[in-house]
Amino acid sequence: MNIHSSFQDISLSKIVEVSEAAREAAPKFEQNTGKPFIFFQRGEVGFDTPTYITNALYEAMQKGLTKYPKSGGEKWFKKAVLHMLHLEGLEVDKNHVICTHGGQEGLQLTFSLFRGSVTAGFGPCWSCMLDNIFPYSQTNFVPIPLRHEDGFQVHWDEVERVVKTADIFYFNTPHNPTGKVFSRDETERLSHICKKHGVLLVADEAYKDIVFDGDHFSALKLENTDVISVFSFSKSFAATGLRVGYTVSRNPDLISKLIKGEYTQTAGVATPLQYAFAEALNNDEERDKWFDMYLPELRARRDCLCDTLDPAFLTTKAQGAFYCFIDLNRFIPKAVQDRDQYLLDLFMRNGIAIVPGSAFGRDYSGYIRLSFSTLDCGLIEEGVRRTNELILSNV
Amino acid sequence: MNIHSSFQDISLSKIVEVSEAAREAAPKFEQNTGKPFIFFQRGEVGFDTPTYITNALYEAMQKGLTKYPKSGGEKWFKKAVLHMLHLEGLEVDKNHVICTHGGQEGLQLTFSLFRGSVTAGFGPCWSCMLDNIFPYSQTNFVPIPLRHEDGFQVHWDEVERVVKTADIFYFNTPHNPTGKVFSRDETERLSHICKKHGVLLVADEAYKDIVFDGDHFSALKLENTDVISVFSFSKSFAATGLRVGYTVSRNPDLISKLIKGEYTQTAGVATPLQYAFAEALNNDEERDKWFDMYLPELRARRDCLCDTLDPAFLTTKAQGAFYCFIDLNRFIPKAVQDRDQYLLDLFMRNGIAIVPGSAFGRDYSGYIRLSFSTLDCGLIEEGVRRTNELILSNV
Repeated sequence: MNIHSSFQDISLSKIVEVSEAAREAAPKFEQNTGKPFIFFQRGEVGFDTPTYITNALYEAMQKGLTKYPKSGGEKWFKKAVLHMLHLEGLEVDKNHVICTHGGQEGLQLTFSLFRGSVTAGFGPCWSCMLDNIFPYSQTNFVPIPLRHEDGFQVHWDEVERVVKTADIFYFNTPHNPTGKVFSRDETERLSHICKKHGVLLVADEAYKDIVFDGDHFSALKLENTDVISVFSFSKSFAATGLRVGYTVSRNPDLISKLIKGEYTQTAGVATPLQYAFAEALNNDEERDKWFDMYLPELRARRDCLCDTLDPAFLTTKAQGAFYCFIDLNRFIPKAVQDRDQYLLDLFMRNGIAIVPGSAFGRDYSGYIRLSFSTLDCGLIEEGVRRTNELILSNV
Repeated sequence: MNIHSSFQDISLSKIVEVSEAAREAAPKFEQNTGKPFIFFQRGEVGFDTPTYITNALYEAMQKGLTKYPKSGGEKWFKKAVLHMLHLEGLEVDKNHVICTHGGQEGLQLTFSLFRGSVTAGFGPCWSCMLDNIFPYSQTNFVPIPLRHEDGFQVHWDEVERVVKTADIFYFNTPHNPTGKVFSRDETERLSHICKKHGVLLVADEAYKDIVFDGDHFSALKLENTDVISVFSFSKSFAATGLRVGYTVSRNPDLISKLIKGEYTQTAGVATPLQYAFAEALNNDEERDKWFDMYLPELRARRDCLCDTLDPAFLTTKAQGAFYCFIDLNRFIPKAVQDRDQYLLDLFMRNGIAIVPGSAFGRDYSGYIRLSFSTLDCGLIEEGVRRTNELILSNV
């Protein structure tokens, strides 16, 4: 029996690997030094899911909403998505929406729909795409580099050159791991190039609500209808473990195909979870209250990290999402062969877990990703103090 | 952009189609005749999910179990599965278990793992395999017929002949749609033939707890370790809409591959749902109470259906699962071209929704599947009275 190659090439996340090593190292470090271990690697959200959402989940159970879900999502779930999009100035139809297991399933189904495609996208790129979704769907990913040295600017000549050869563009905004929020102009220019070359634009908008500077411009606002936008409740509502999201496209044929795939894979998203997130979107008052607490706190954490990291190596402040992505190559001794392992060990010895840059693409070894979503400002500042010392004493 | 052929060949379930037609037809029928519409088509479970499970779900939320699940399932979820299997006389290791979105994802992942396989299995076959899972995984399914005329006996010469040419055997016991519960002897003999020809045995044991006559013999009890057994909580705990199940194999390499696929597709099953079903399995007292209520009631419904259907066309009583599968070919006028459409219309006109036989394989047109899982005995008897009249007056 031959296991199909789509399974052979998947690896479990490097971030999970780092997290497991950190979990083991932390107690020893804390015992030996009396200092806290700093978990800078996690993309988890260090807040409780809002109680109005967890209460709605219980309400759904009491209402007996434990029967087979409707393929592609319940009517009332889709209606809640339309309500939310309407508030954001977007009019879409219920046939444009599918409910998925997190944003991840939306992406996995989309790339499986076009199994074997050539996909362009910016590098660095979310590790799960590289380690899981691209190999599983046998996608050939061609990265277009963003560089720390110029503040992660888009080089349009490179975009044009790669898009020409591609079927799909994978566009993640706000961007993991750089924290870049692509502007309206950038998004429209990218869409124009895709349209010109008949390339489908797949927008991963999982961090759409986590924006500190500038505005998120949804790909659904483009005139271009060859767009699939993938959303998740995980980051917006501190609900990574509830695994609910939705995918939207104005091309109803694509959505109907995705619904068939989604039905085949899992027979749908648990009915009471759909109910809970319909409430998350419908209850404007509670939702506003949540974001009024959540976003300023995340912004404070972002500032704690970005404003105290030494300007010698942090040059670009995260505009959105949860991450800073930093090029440390010039601080690494020339003789070092495996720069990622060097950084991992250096930080781990000093009680800090980071994600090495190569998790986001081969071109990024010697970079690190620091997450500010799980730690309070006190711990972030302690981590930054240690990081500054570590890197500057290394020069 | 070419949509991959694995998506082109999927169709949404014929059962869903019938259900939607029935939902539309029912109010008119009831208004015109004053008689109740009989929903014999549904594989849904007409009981509330036990409150000890829904309460556990709420408890999980209160405990803050809303963060990323562990790939392949939480330790405490797997421990609960091992506890349950231990009670059933089976010792397996936590590395033999993966938590999935229902049994359906367990099957979909397994067949995707061996994409493009030749799979043998008994016909009639669960419609979702034929319409969804086989086409999505580009599996070539070769049915080995079970026949109404001899009480769905296994013809071992046919099994041997087909297994020789196959990579996988899909083995559903208790069996949808015939209600057959394969005996220990039959299961061992099948396993022996599979082993001889190097064929992987994939056992779909979704109805393992729904047995009225005989005993369910799990494929995990075989000496053969080239077995993947797929389980679901949907039918056992009236929880079709919560979408949780688990898959077990003594081949840990297969499980580790399935975990990678599962992580890629959805990043795991919602943490609080895993908690709820860990409680479903761990709480022996509440579980016993549930089955002490549930199984006798289902048995009563089975008896209402099978004992009152006219023996002229019902010859085999369901031993397990929720269904009777009946050959009506000799009652259909010879001139009829589309026997399934004929039966669908005949029943629908008389206020009964059934699933036509061809949903379970091309060889079964002129058969119908009747489900007894959603209706109480009063409605079942009303449906049977009408069915008897309809068929016998048709001769």
